[in-house]
Amino acid sequence: MEVGVGIHIIADFYGVDSELIATTERMYPIIEGAVEYGRLTKISSDYYQFRPKGASGIVLLAESHLSFHTWPEYGLVTLDIYTCGDPRTADDAFAYLVDKLRPTSISTRKIIRGDMIEEAGENQIEEAALH
Amino acid sequence: MEVGVGIHIIADFYGVDSELIATTERMYPIIEGAVEYGRLTKISSDYYQFRPKGASGIVLLAESHLSFHTWPEYGLVTLDIYTCGDPRTADDAFAYLVDKLRPTSISTRKIIRGDMIEEAGENQIEEAALH
Repeated sequence: MEVGVGIHIIADFYGVDSELIATTERMYPIIEGAVEYGRLTKISSDYYQFRPKGASGIVLLAESHLSFHTWPEYGLVTLDIYTCGDPRTADDAFAYLVDKLRPTSISTRKIIRGDMIEEAGENQIEEAALH
Repeated sequence: MEVGVGIHIIADFYGVDSELIATTERMYPIIEGAVEYGRLTKISSDYYQFRPKGASGIVLLAESHLSFHTWPEYGLVTLDIYTCGDPRTADDAFAYLVDKLRPTSISTRKIIRGDMIEEAGENQIEEAALH
């Protein structure tokens, strides 16, 4: 099993349809759909419309968060999907976003968050195991 | 000048005082203080208290976002500071968080987001420059 508290997928999507990512109105169902498809637990979400175009949004999850920021002038969406719990949930949410946004290219990194907890917090881990 | 749309500091803080990071009540002034110290523009923020302890929060910024998630049982705070605009704002917010949270060790990565826009969206960049 991988050590750490969660999986963080950091992805930049290029070549996305500029009109699709220009507004929160069009991004909202895509982001909320990804949360649902990934079986993630939404606590709250907030979206912001930039003028003349561009959108940002963040979903606070029981499993951490999912966020996006768009630059329609570049066809760019930057995405973060950070989940603790089952790592497949992040992969599924990511796959959903690829399907809906249809980028022509993707730059992606997958990082394990809190991967030094064994070294840094050995005593705390033992304590936590007693809960 | 670095290419891309923004700087993303991804940091895991270890050895942080468990009591300090157990509640949104104590994390709130630290996070909001970092936004202010970094001269970042808050759109909205949301915090969530886990039971029995642990906190998450996210600040949607005009410059992107700042988020945190705590695991008091490990003395762990995972932080993301993602800003477009002046990269020093992210560095300043980060320095503030180090000062207030006083981790015994830090794992940090600094990523340039959207760093392929020149290749992927050359036409769009020219178009954007005409705005």
